[in-house]
Amino acid sequence: MTTATAGPTVTPAEQAAMERALTLAATPGLDLGPNPRVGCVLLDADGATLAEGFHRGAGTPHAEAVALTNARHAHGPAALRGATAVVTLEPCAHTGRTGPCAEALRDAGVSRVVFAQPDPNPQAAGGADVLRAAGVTVVGEVRADAARALNHAWSAAVTLGRPFVTWKVATTLDGRSAAADGTSRWITSAAARRDVHRLRAEADTVLVGTGTLLDDDPSLTVRDAPGPQPLRAVMGLREIPATARLAGPGPDGAAARHLRTRDPRAALTRLWDLDRRHVLLEGGATLAAAFLRAGLVDEIVAYVSPTLLGAGTAAVGDLGITTITDAARFDLVDATVVDPTPDDLATPDGPASGLAATNLRLTLRPRKES
Amino acid sequence: MTTATAGPTVTPAEQAAMERALTLAATPGLDLGPNPRVGCVLLDADGATLAEGFHRGAGTPHAEAVALTNARHAHGPAALRGATAVVTLEPCAHTGRTGPCAEALRDAGVSRVVFAQPDPNPQAAGGADVLRAAGVTVVGEVRADAARALNHAWSAAVTLGRPFVTWKVATTLDGRSAAADGTSRWITSAAARRDVHRLRAEADTVLVGTGTLLDDDPSLTVRDAPGPQPLRAVMGLREIPATARLAGPGPDGAAARHLRTRDPRAALTRLWDLDRRHVLLEGGATLAAAFLRAGLVDEIVAYVSPTLLGAGTAAVGDLGITTITDAARFDLVDATVVDPTPDDLATPDGPASGLAATNLRLTLRPRKES
Repeated sequence: MTTATAGPTVTPAEQAAMERALTLAATPGLDLGPNPRVGCVLLDADGATLAEGFHRGAGTPHAEAVALTNARHAHGPAALRGATAVVTLEPCAHTGRTGPCAEALRDAGVSRVVFAQPDPNPQAAGGADVLRAAGVTVVGEVRADAARALNHAWSAAVTLGRPFVTWKVATTLDGRSAAADGTSRWITSAAARRDVHRLRAEADTVLVGTGTLLDDDPSLTVRDAPGPQPLRAVMGLREIPATARLAGPGPDGAAARHLRTRDPRAALTRLWDLDRRHVLLEGGATLAAAFLRAGLVDEIVAYVSPTLLGAGTAAVGDLGITTITDAARFDLVDATVVDPTPDDLATPDGPASGLAATNLRLTLRPRKES
Repeated sequence: MTTATAGPTVTPAEQAAMERALTLAATPGLDLGPNPRVGCVLLDADGATLAEGFHRGAGTPHAEAVALTNARHAHGPAALRGATAVVTLEPCAHTGRTGPCAEALRDAGVSRVVFAQPDPNPQAAGGADVLRAAGVTVVGEVRADAARALNHAWSAAVTLGRPFVTWKVATTLDGRSAAADGTSRWITSAAARRDVHRLRAEADTVLVGTGTLLDDDPSLTVRDAPGPQPLRAVMGLREIPATARLAGPGPDGAAARHLRTRDPRAALTRLWDLDRRHVLLEGGATLAAAFLRAGLVDEIVAYVSPTLLGAGTAAVGDLGITTITDAARFDLVDATVVDPTPDDLATPDGPASGLAATNLRLTLRPRKES
């Protein structure tokens, strides 16, 4: 696969329209359900903008359909003859809750389509072929990496046929998630824990095991972040006590979903069927080890506190690895220093308890062997 | 203590001279022994440079003495009447292997002294007072932080009356320094291990325990770094086998020094008496834990590899900490991504073995409670 670069293939107006479409796609606070972020800009033959659109989530029109409707409303149907559609994702070729966008663009008289990311969804792909077969000029993979980054979890999920899994772990420098007596509040700083709410808001599901539920009684809600609350889910065979926070109504009014299995793959299948595409794994060392052993961790976000415990609970359970050449290897894709705010520093017991410490956030992805 | 800023107190010529003196002090490849890095520039009444000097190490003249000699040689003794000395460390007031610099400056007719770092050595301090008592104008703490950074280990050591201790540790993300079967080659990348040679070259002593000696048979030499080789030292009560690499002649022709004690403080006292001021602790989890429990780790340099083992040897032994509020807390002062070189990436088994991975180097210092 080759990446089209901005050269003879796209005009400056189309490049600018693609940047605008990416911005539209990234609109915060959307409730997308199982769908990707998509933005679309329609240009006339002179490169002037006819209309824009973006997808607001499952059950609502696709970005292309929104833009076509807006263009007809503003300029009449004839304005679309010979128009160019600039869209962040390859127009779909399948009929879901809405009709196929490739056919809608063709039928409207659009003569040229510039898109960024090829559709990774095997059920929806083929839109470019439909358009080309109808005589429409199609240019793909313009700013494909930017578009892919916008939907990185969704893209991986539809390719894998299961939700993308991010494992969040808070650890000391020596790999402990709790002291010998089980205490763990607070290993990481206040700023690191606020950052976890951002992580939760980016996922559509937050998952723990019954062990973490019984030990920590978490609520798993998102504070101070826009958009819908993720589904709260618990997996394991033990019952959820009626007094647990997760047994009470969450922000959506419902109790947490109980997945009665200890098998990570079965849990992910259940979540996929619930239209979930991005699971944030926040359970303990045992649950994390089960997902890691099954090869079902796609990303690790580790908050590392500059502390040592020397003993206590390991951040990850036994992985069945006995020798160094079998170590689970990842690529370090980001390392960000998470600094305390002035408010954190002004908290009376902040410095002593580590709440005001500078922590580190590491993002890792499974190593691709070369 | 207040920090003098560049304002009415120092002239632009003196500021420039201080920068030059800092550069002279930082001359690479010096064999300083127990002495600090010091640079000196002498200016005439018009701010023109008369001479420069820097200290080359124990047994050689101090920076001020070198500069005075150079000035007399170039311009004659009379040129020093009314001159200004700009020096990175407060001129000493004690007679060691050379006479006190404060008196030498005074006797030469220098009428003004601008220095950066106050002398932290209780035996040598007081130079500013000697000069002021003789009617010399003294301005202190100009670029004091830069001068202190140049000699950070030495400054701490003379204040503490023992060598400064840097603990170097190589660890997985989950805090393991070896797999369950004891294998540890290689947890960290080739680039990280080259960086350790730079660390060794910055210290004057590399220390392991007899356990590490017997397990790993290290050589502890410095490759590809300028300057003298650090002293190789082993502590513990077990004998050093005659076949061990550390029993053989090192770069200095001698076998490693065996410190027959298990007490970190006793070992540091022995090393202090051997004129050692900066110890790089490269031992295993047990030795590190002994130093940490004794409060004798002044700095941690951790190389973190993006791997998980899930089991194996912990990077640090038991610290006697049982609950989270007693965690050993540090300040994260630096986080640096250590990337592989093109050569590392081209090594056939590099990627698979982690030799070509991106690692992370973290520098931590004991937390100062506010």
